[in-house]
This record gives sequence, structure tokens and C-alpha cells, in this order.
Amino acid sequence: MAIGLGLIGTGFMGKAHALAYRAAGAVFGDLPDVRLALLCDTPADRAEAMARQFGFQSATGHWRALVASPDVDIVSITTPNGLHKEMALAAIAAGKHVHCEKPMALTLEDAAAMEAAARKAGVSTIVGYNYIHNPAFAHARRLIAGGVIGRPVHFRGIVDEDYQADPELAWTWRAKRADAGLGTLGDLGCHLVSMACGLMGPAESLVADTQIIHETRPLADGSGRAAVENEDTASAILRFASGAQGTLVTSRSAWGRKNRLDFEVHGTKGMIGFSQERMNELQLFVDEGERSRQGFRTILTGPEHPPYGAFCPAAGHQLGFGDLKTIEVASFLRAIAGGQPAHPDFSAALGFEAVIHAIDVSAREGRRVQL
Amino acid sequence: MAIGLGLIGTGFMGKAHALAYRAAGAVFGDLPDVRLALLCDTPADRAEAMARQFGFQSATGHWRALVASPDVDIVSITTPNGLHKEMALAAIAAGKHVHCEKPMALTLEDAAAMEAAARKAGVSTIVGYNYIHNPAFAHARRLIAGGVIGRPVHFRGIVDEDYQADPELAWTWRAKRADAGLGTLGDLGCHLVSMACGLMGPAESLVADTQIIHETRPLADGSGRAAVENEDTASAILRFASGAQGTLVTSRSAWGRKNRLDFEVHGTKGMIGFSQERMNELQLFVDEGERSRQGFRTILTGPEHPPYGAFCPAAGHQLGFGDLKTIEVASFLRAIAGGQPAHPDFSAALGFEAVIHAIDVSAREGRRVQL
Amino acid sequence: MAIGLGLIGTGFMGKAHALAYRAAGAVFGDLPDVRLALLCDTPADRAEAMARQFGFQSATGHWRALVASPDVDIVSITTPNGLHKEMALAAIAAGKHVHCEKPMALTLEDAAAMEAAARKAGVSTIVGYNYIHNPAFAHARRLIAGGVIGRPVHFRGIVDEDYQADPELAWTWRAKRADAGLGTLGDLGCHLVSMACGLMGPAESLVADTQIIHETRPLADGSGRAAVENEDTASAILRFASGAQGTLVTSRSAWGRKNRLDFEVHGTKGMIGFSQERMNELQLFVDEGERSRQGFRTILTGPEHPPYGAFCPAAGHQLGFGDLKTIEVASFLRAIAGGQPAHPDFSAALGFEAVIHAIDVSAREGRRVQL
Amino acid sequence: MAIGLGLIGTGFMGKAHALAYRAAGAVFGDLPDVRLALLCDTPADRAEAMARQFGFQSATGHWRALVASPDVDIVSITTPNGLHKEMALAAIAAGKHVHCEKPMALTLEDAAAMEAAARKAGVSTIVGYNYIHNPAFAHARRLIAGGVIGRPVHFRGIVDEDYQADPELAWTWRAKRADAGLGTLGDLGCHLVSMACGLMGPAESLVADTQIIHETRPLADGSGRAAVENEDTASAILRFASGAQGTLVTSRSAWGRKNRLDFEVHGTKGMIGFSQERMNELQLFVDEGERSRQGFRTILTGPEHPPYGAFCPAAGHQLGFGDLKTIEVASFLRAIAGGQPAHPDFSAALGFEAVIHAIDVSAREGRRVQL
Repeated sequence: MAIGLGLIGTGFMGKAHALAYRAAGAVFGDLPDVRLALLCDTPADRAEAMARQFGFQSATGHWRALVASPDVDIVSITTPNGLHKEMALAAIAAGKHVHCEKPMALTLEDAAAMEAAARKAGVSTIVGYNYIHNPAFAHARRLIAGGVIGRPVHFRGIVDEDYQADPELAWTWRAKRADAGLGTLGDLGCHLVSMACGLMGPAESLVADTQIIHETRPLADGSGRAAVENEDTASAILRFASGAQGTLVTSRSAWGRKNRLDFEVHGTKGMIGFSQERMNELQLFVDEGERSRQGFRTILTGPEHPPYGAFCPAAGHQLGFGDLKTIEVASFLRAIAGGQPAHPDFSAALGFEAVIHAIDVSAREGRRVQL
Repeated sequence: MAIGLGLIGTGFMGKAHALAYRAAGAVFGDLPDVRLALLCDTPADRAEAMARQFGFQSATGHWRALVASPDVDIVSITTPNGLHKEMALAAIAAGKHVHCEKPMALTLEDAAAMEAAARKAGVSTIVGYNYIHNPAFAHARRLIAGGVIGRPVHFRGIVDEDYQADPELAWTWRAKRADAGLGTLGDLGCHLVSMACGLMGPAESLVADTQIIHETRPLADGSGRAAVENEDTASAILRFASGAQGTLVTSRSAWGRKNRLDFEVHGTKGMIGFSQERMNELQLFVDEGERSRQGFRTILTGPEHPPYGAFCPAAGHQLGFGDLKTIEVASFLRAIAGGQPAHPDFSAALGFEAVIHAIDVSAREGRRVQL
Repeated sequence: MAIGLGLIGTGFMGKAHALAYRAAGAVFGDLPDVRLALLCDTPADRAEAMARQFGFQSATGHWRALVASPDVDIVSITTPNGLHKEMALAAIAAGKHVHCEKPMALTLEDAAAMEAAARKAGVSTIVGYNYIHNPAFAHARRLIAGGVIGRPVHFRGIVDEDYQADPELAWTWRAKRADAGLGTLGDLGCHLVSMACGLMGPAESLVADTQIIHETRPLADGSGRAAVENEDTASAILRFASGAQGTLVTSRSAWGRKNRLDFEVHGTKGMIGFSQERMNELQLFVDEGERSRQGFRTILTGPEHPPYGAFCPAAGHQLGFGDLKTIEVASFLRAIAGGQPAHPDFSAALGFEAVIHAIDVSAREGRRVQL
Repeated sequence: MAIGLGLIGTGFMGKAHALAYRAAGAVFGDLPDVRLALLCDTPADRAEAMARQFGFQSATGHWRALVASPDVDIVSITTPNGLHKEMALAAIAAGKHVHCEKPMALTLEDAAAMEAAARKAGVSTIVGYNYIHNPAFAHARRLIAGGVIGRPVHFRGIVDEDYQADPELAWTWRAKRADAGLGTLGDLGCHLVSMACGLMGPAESLVADTQIIHETRPLADGSGRAAVENEDTASAILRFASGAQGTLVTSRSAWGRKNRLDFEVHGTKGMIGFSQERMNELQLFVDEGERSRQGFRTILTGPEHPPYGAFCPAAGHQLGFGDLKTIEVASFLRAIAGGQPAHPDFSAALGFEAVIHAIDVSAREGRRVQL
């Protein structure tokens, strides 16, 4: 009997989930069958229309109905961040597996509650840190594990977009701490943390600072301006448990950056670099061979970098953003079928999100924060 | 009643078609419904297995059965090039719409026969020149049409891969003219032509040269070496009907190139550049504003470059190779539904392929060839 | 009467100064004449040999003789950093103008003493922060001053090399705090500060961390290992007086980086980026014109970016490292002739170096440091 | 007794020669001494002024006086191309060594006459193909000679600028065949040939086409328009004596290109790429090591790439255009001192220029031209 998917949300991430669940089985030959069982959005007729487009069997305007449906085995949550907790707890309570978009919740406490509930219930979970499913990222991890760049000693990470760069952009709920939680740290920074920890291991402590660039924004109705309550930029200097250090920097007000998510791992024998806006490339420098021929090499991902080959047998043909989501889904389905944890499950994701909240605390309290 | 797809072949392109037909409707909300009706490959049990993976309703080991099936409205042909003609003619004779991979056929005569049959039968056709469906390419065309770079006066195109770069790679049927037709021109060069003509208009005449780099290759069974009969590289200098000139260069023996498909259009006011290995970027130089601030700009594709937004509402998140095939499929389905020709249909594709055969003739006969 | 140059040192920087003083007058038509009067190095016969090569009128093995020589108007100091202070104070006492390599001294106190002495004596001074003489840097400053990217709100800076990346490199005096002072901050970090302050204005406070990657290094004589006492990497988060924030990161152990000195200035209307390893390029993004055509543009420096044109009337022909030194020399000679301060004189350079020492203090004491 | 330099011309190239002859001895420790003896330009007072700036001992308004002067051993010719022949023949007749800018002359016949005269007279000659003196180019040659990329089998070359891109730029003598000779081939194309032949060996035959983009240009006095008589673009497909093929393409009307001079050498084991606008980098791909780690590497030139180290002991610090001229001068001075031919002397340069004239002939006569 195929696994039943219940998807809540049909926006950017909702569509991404729908496409990925549609594609995964055909891309990978080894996955359990999935039924696109039930799609939820409001109003209900939007849910109906998108269910037809995405190929879901039925639709609803009530997420609690979705969570309760016996047709649904996986609840996929792609709603605004402030709704994740209630939906996830309900789904867990109903014994469903949960696929939740990042960040898990507005506060670390809420995320911790979700993690505890999932652990206790024994359901499978995964959080949508899709960039770490990139074959290029997996290859970076393998190179490090294989000692190719020696011991990792320093990390540099940047994640920038420009969706809040325009000073005259209207105020939205995203700027309100009670509704949106953190600013760029929650939207972007946590992705970078998922990479940093995946490459360098856990962080131990940090110092940080944050900045609100645009202190107020005009209200859309022309009635004045309202305060921006969460950070436009954040910067942190981390100490990892391994003894290495590193920096994380993020801005949602960085003109010209559309999906910049760059990292460098400096090792004692070489260096690895990556840039999400060129997500099919990996930079590698190794201190080997004649010095006169050394240089950073640009590795184009291909079938030598699993699971690229499941999409295309020819190197350099490029995966896209949607393909990363498909890999994430495949990994979740395998975990469900095999009974082992997916990555990153709620527990791993909680670790990532602890870092962004620690950055916020360090910046507000002006002190080193231990993790 | 949904349009029934019959797909022949489950290799690189077969899988690409299957994934694209699965995805297209969910990506685009405005397409006619498609049923994945029948999948053909040999042996039949491979067809069965892949039908299960890809989600086809049934499978067969006999392509003629597929072509004859009343369940099938579109015949999608992804077999080796030498088989296209027979299959396409049979499908046309059965009144099916035909989606054929490029190149259409081994010879221009065969391609012309296919085109004539399709035209006479009035079926819809499309040929798999998927790179021209890239939103970046569409944007390049719009920029030119809008006069942004002035009158296009010069074209530069390169298409390189390295799948035949290794001198000790075993001989295969690809090296045999009777079985494979042209060499790099058929595999790669025709893609470049599809771009050149789409940007510059039709070519009028050309001079060219070709080269066999590896004159023999070892037989796989160790019994000696066999001759390579078709070109490893080809170079041509074109005159377009517009009066512009341009160069096309291709190699299948270009170490390090995985899917290089680069073009430049030089205009009287600016220049556009593109590189398939960075397929989400477009280079643009325009002679405007202060000289001290001029420079090539790297445009990252996004929702401003349709139909990127159907995949993702955020710029810079990257489409992949598979997404191009999905756009191609969408364009074919719209054409079928609307009754107008798809692009490139057999007629347009015949025009592209006339150019690669003219390059071959020019090289062999040492003379300018008119198109 | 031509200005007499006395140059101390014939190594990397010594040669750079010699070549620059030789070239400056011929490159720029508006400079006072310079005589290459006296060259000092030890042993004296090295000084003799290099004086012949560089075209100096005479040579000496004694720097105090050079400082005292009535033939010498400018004392150019390119010796190891620990010697700068004594030489500069002697030169100032003798009424000479002083051209000193960076950093000014091992400690901030020593640098401050040099600055006070020069100010009191009224001699002209300049410190060898040559990268800020790049026409590309000057252009970045002009773009910011002209409001092209709006209000500068965020800064990112990286300066990396790999001369201490190899774990098995022998221990040298560079690793000893008493002899070398700071580590990567003194060698590299201060260059980055000179750029950061030039673009963003003065820094106000910072938090920082540093790291010794290779805690010991083998002694060259094979007798064991000795401790590395100064930092291999340093990271800081700055608050500028303007209210902007920014990060500075540096490593002398970053494999593959040869002279990476990169910055970004994020503004409210656009962004500027620069990379020293491509020193003839400037990246510029401005939020103007149609969104579909926006992108980072690569500006190649040329005559529109003074004083590039003094070297070459054609854009894109590339200046080199030596040319930056020539511009620095020209700027110093103009200051001497005109009686106004050069940039950066001891006073400005002291401001730069206060920042690297503040980073060191913050890292050692674990607290925010005010500047 | 130092070698006396007589330099004719103080424009772009004149200044480049002056700076290079000033610098060469100080950069390289092993060169014969040079005196900047005599500078010629018209009017004479310009020559006087520039002689003061450049440091020449005297000046003249009459080039024949310079050629005749017993103070002059080398005659350096940087005047418009149409004057080279007469000046060079006079200098040779006077027994002087000749340093001539490229191209040697307006016609191949004139260049041949110059070559014959120099050979007969036994004087040393060199032609200003400065780009081949780049340490990166020398390294490319060494890599090929050392078999690193296997047998060179294919060449791609492009040289583009935009100084004739603007359709409304005024007509000048450069557009007149009698005064300027070839168009982009003479200005730019011959540089590319010097690289192609240096990397691939001599060319054997070619087919080509050329194009005049802007058929007329406005006269500066507003009195109408005049015809452009020489090519804006040229394209050629070459067969080298080695059996390899390659393409050369050039445009003087390529918007945004300031000094693009790019080549690729495809070999049986790897590939080398170079781009003059990033002249301190070399791209190298070698089919070695694990496929999953292969990629084009960017080699930054440094002391491992002689004679970079003569300018700077630290890699990645960047040479500039002027430094290439300094290397050219050093190579000429060594040749004069040692009695062996410099490279490229008139004989080698004649070989380069035969190729651009062959391209012109092939384009005009529509036939393959043997070299």
C-alpha cells in the first residue's frame, strides 16, 4: 500500500514539495510508492484547483482534517513559520510522519517541543534544509571525510538575498518579531548553519552581532511607517567543538544576491569552496603535485557525485533547485521505509536552529554564548 | 480525455522525457492532461520495470505495437538516431503526434522525408532541441528583438564535450558513419545551430572544416583497432541571411568540457553571452550610461524570465537540465491542444540539421556551401 | 634640485620601492624630480650590487649613515617590521620625509610614538598601504561618494594567503610575538582595514576571535619544535561610526589563496565588490533599470578610472602590483612638493593599525573593544 | 659602454617602450646597460617635453636624425604602421638594431622586405608581440612541451576589442586600406597568430571570411560619410603543419571587450585555456586522478612561472601590461648582448603576419590559401 502524502500549503514551498513527491519515485527506482492523497490550502477552492494541477486525489481547506485523515501517512508542512508548531504537534499526535519546512518554529522552545514530541511518538521527521542534499555538498563532505583537504581548521559562510534590500518596500508581518521570529537568521542563516555543522561538526560557542538596516518601513495602506523588529544582517564568529573557528554572515538586504549561500572549508592540506548560485560546481584546492600547476579547480557535478546520476547520466548538465527537494523527499521516504532516522530530522534540525538563536542572544546580550 | 503518451526508449533521453511528461502539468497550470500510457523498450521486462518506475500504465517490447496502440496519441522517440526515421514515419502514418529526439535522422534526406510526411499528415511534431527552451535563451531573444544590443552583427558559438577525448576509449557504433551518421555535428553541433538560427535568423552559406583526431580506436574485444569514420571536431564560418557572419565550433574530444554550449551575439549597441554550463546566467553588455560604470553584467534568471516562475518564484534558485525538457514538453502539449505548430517542429529542425550537413559537405568538398 | 631618495632594504618591498621611484616620474608628467641617491642593505656588498641594478648613485651597509646623509630627503623603510620604529624615529629626527612599509610597528604604542614624532617634526610621511592606490579602489570610493549604491550599510572583507598553510613549514621569527608582533593581522589584516576604513569611515568598536592553527612548527635545524605565538586567523565584527556593521576575516593559512583581498560594500541602492586577485575588475550592482536586466557587472579598469590612464590609454590592459606602488610613490612625491599630507600618512595609518590591535585585544580578553 | 636607445614615438606604444627600457635593467639583474639616448616625436617640442618626462638624454623632431645618430644603437619604432617600413629600412641601413611595433608593415611584401634587409645586415630585431612574453604563456608552452596535455590537437583563439564598435564613431585613416592596411587583423589578429603559432607550430593552410560591419562612418567635419575599407571582423579555420586544426576569430567591434585575447589548446590528455583580460591566470584541465575530483584549475602566476619572480617574489600579486613590455625589452637586450636572435625577430614575425594576410586573401578570393 502506497504511502499517503498530505501536503499543507501550495505556495513556493508547497509547490516544491508537490513536484518533488511527484518526481522522486520516477527518478529513483528504489523508493516506496507514494500517493498524493490530500492537499490543504485556504480557501478551499484554491486547494481544489492546486490539487488538480499537482495531481492530488483530494483537497481540503482544513488542515486539521488533513492531519486526521486515515489516507495520510506523511504530513508535509509548508505554511508560514508561526504555524509549524501547532500543525506538527497535531500531526505527531495523530501518529503521522512529518516533513516540515525550515525553520521549525519561531522560537527555540517551540522547536524543542516539536522535537521532544516527535522523539516520544517515534514518528519519522525531516526538516526542509534542502541545500545539504546537493550532490556537490555530499561530495564536499566525502572529500573532507577522506582527508583530501586534511584537517578542517576554518570555515567561512555567507548567505545573502536582496528581498529586503529596497528601503521603500512595504512593512509586512515578516518584520514583526511575534509573528516572524528572527529575521534573516530564520529565513537564510539557518541554511548556512546546516552546511557549517555538516562540514565542521557541532559548534561550541560564539560571539555575534546583528543589525537592523531599515528601522521602519512604510505601511502598505499609506497610513505611516512601522518598526522593523528583527535583524536585516547577522554576523557570528564560531568556535566548533573540533577546535576550528569560523564565521557566519547573512543579510536579507544584500542587493544583487538572489540565493547566495557560499561556504569555504579551509583544511591543513587544501580548501573547498561552494557557491549556491553556481550550485553544480565545487571548488577544490589541494596542495599536491607541482606547485607551478596548482590552482583551484572547478569540479562540475556529474554521475561521479551521487545521486546526480539518478537525474542524468551526463556530467555538467546541471541539477536545479527542484531536484534538491526531490533528493530530500527520496531520503525521507527511504528513512520511513527503512525505519531509520532521516537527515536532518527534528533532532538534527533543532541543533541547527539552536545556533541561530544563540547568534540572536549573543547580539542582544553582548556576550559569548555557549551551545 | 487525457492525451496518451507512448514513449520509446528508457535511456538518458527516455528518462528525461518520462520525468518531463510527469512534471509538466503540475508545473504549468494550463496544460491539457496527459496519461503516461505506454512505454517501450527491449527487452520487454526492462520496459515493464521502467514503466513501474516512471509510472506508465503499461509496457511493451515492440515499438510497432506502441505506434499502433489506440491508447497512444503522442509517440516520443528517444532511440538511437538511426531508428528515428522508421519509427517517426510509422507514427505519422498512424496519425500520431511525434516528439523526436535530435538529430532527426542520420542523413538530411531522411530528415526531409520525415518532415514531408509530417507536414502532409498534419500531425504535430517537435524535436528535442531542449536548450532553446531555457528562460535565459528566451530572454536573449527578447533582448535582441527589443533592440537592446542593436542590430546583431556577429555570432560566436562553441559546443564541446569530452566523451570522445580519451584516445584509448573503445570503438563503438558511434564512430561508424553508416550507423551514427555525423560525429560531433550530430551529437552536439546541431544544438548550437538551433541557438544560432534562433538568435541570428537563417544561415545562407558557409565554409567549414572538420577533423578526425583519433583515427582509430581499440575494439572492445581486444581484437585490434577500427577506423573512426566521422568527425571529432568541426568548425564553420557562416554568413546569415541578415548579412551578419559567425562561427560555429564543436568538439566531442575537448577534455574537461561536460556540456559546454556557449554563444555570443555581438550587436551594434551591446553584446549577449551565454554558457550552458552556467545555464541560469546571461551575460549582457550595453553601451549605455557612464563609460566608467559599464561592464558585462551577469543576469541570474528568475521570475522576470518566463517561464522560470512556473518552477520557482525566487530568482537565482536555479533551473536544471530536466526543467528544460519540462518546458519543451509543455510547449508541445500547448501546440497540440491549440492546433498551432510547436517549436521546433520537424520543419524548423530540418532547417537546423541542414546546416550541420552543409558543414560536413563543405569540409569534405572544400567549397562554400549554400543553404 | 631633485629630491634625494634613501632606501633601506632590497628584498620584496625594497625592490618594489626602487622600481616605483624609478618609474613614477616617467609615468606621471607632473612630479618633482627624484634622485635615487643612496641604497642601504647588509652586507654592504649586497647594497652595492643592488644599487647598480636599481640605478642608485651610491650604497651603504649602515642605515644610520643613510639617515644622516645630506643627499637623502626621503627615507624609505622596507626592513622587517621590528626595525621600523627605530629607523623612522631617527629619520624624523634628521628631518627626513619617511616612507614606511606597513605595519608601522610591532605594537600600537610604537606606532603611536612614530606618529607623534612625525607630527611634531612636520615631515611628510606615508605608509605602504599600496592596495588602496588601485584605480579600482578609487573608483569604488567615488561610486560610494556619488551615492551610486546609496548609503553604505554593511561591509564584508577577507584577506587570505597561504604562506603559513603548510603544517610542516619550519618555524621562523615570524611566529614569535616579541619579534614579529601580530600574525596574520599585521601581515594581511591591516591591508583590509585600510580598505574598510577608506570605504566605510572609522570603526567604533568590535568583537573578535583569533586562532592559532598550527600550535608548533619544526625548527629548521631538526632540534625539535617551537611554539607559534601569534594568530594564523582572525575574525572580527565591526560597528562603524556611521552605524553600519561589517566583518573582517583573515588567514595566513588559507591554501590556494595567494593575494586574496576581497571586499564588498552593501548599500541601500546597490553593491560594490572587489577581489585583489583580479585587481583590474570591480563588481557593481545597482538597483536601476528593468529588473529582468539587472545583474552584477564587471567593470574593467581603464582610463575612465584615474590614474590608470597614466600607465596605458587603453582599458582592460591591466595594471600590475608594481604599478600600485608607483601610484603610491607619486602620491607621496606630490604631497612633499605641495606641502599637504599624503595618504595614508602616519596618522591615518595609526588609525588602521589601531583596529588590528583592537582585534587582538578583543580576542585575548573576550570582550567588545572600543576604538 | 651602455647600449643607446633611440625611440621614435611617444604615444601609447612609445610610452610603453620608454617605461620598459627604463625598468628592465632594475627588474632583471643580468642585462646590459641601456642609455635612453634620444627620443623623437613631432613637433620637436613634444619630443623635448616627453624626453624630460621619460628621462631621455636628448630629443629630436626628425626621425632620420635619430636613425643617423652615433649615440643610438637600438631604434625603437612605435609610429603608425604605415611608417614602419621606411624607418626600419633606414635604421637597418645604418646598422642599428631594430625594435619595431606590430604589425611590421601594411603589406606582406613590405614586411618581407624588412625581414630580408635585417637578415642581410645581421642586425638584431624584435617585433612587439608583447603578449607572448607573459609568464602564463611561457608556462602554457612548457606544459605542452612537457606533454602535460598530451598531443595538441585543436586550437581556439579569439581576440576582440570594442574601439570600432560604436556605429557613429568618426571615420579615420584607420578605415582606409592604403593608409592602415588590414583592419582588425592587423591591429588585433596578428597578436592571436603569435600565440597560435607559438603553441601549435606553423600553420599550413586556411579558409577564412571577413566582414565590414559599419560600411561607412561619418566624417569628423560633418561633411558626410566615408567608406570603411578594411575588415571589422575576421574568422579563419586553420590547418597546422602538425595535423591539428583550429579557429581564429577577431573583431574590433565587439562591445564590452577591452583586450580580450583568449586561447584554448585542446590536447589528447588535457586542455589549457587563457584569457588576456585575466592575464595572471592560466586554466588547466588534465585527465588524471579520480574523475570525481577533476576540473579546470585556475593557476595564478607566481615565481614558479619565470620570469614573474623578477618582478615580485609572491604569487598572485599580478603583473600588468607594462611588465610584459619590460620582459620583451629584456629579451631583446639579452639577444643583442649574446648575439643570438631575439624572439620574435623579423623572421618569426613575418611568419605571423603571413597568416593574417592569408586570411585576408582567403576571404577576398573565397578559396583555401596555403602558407
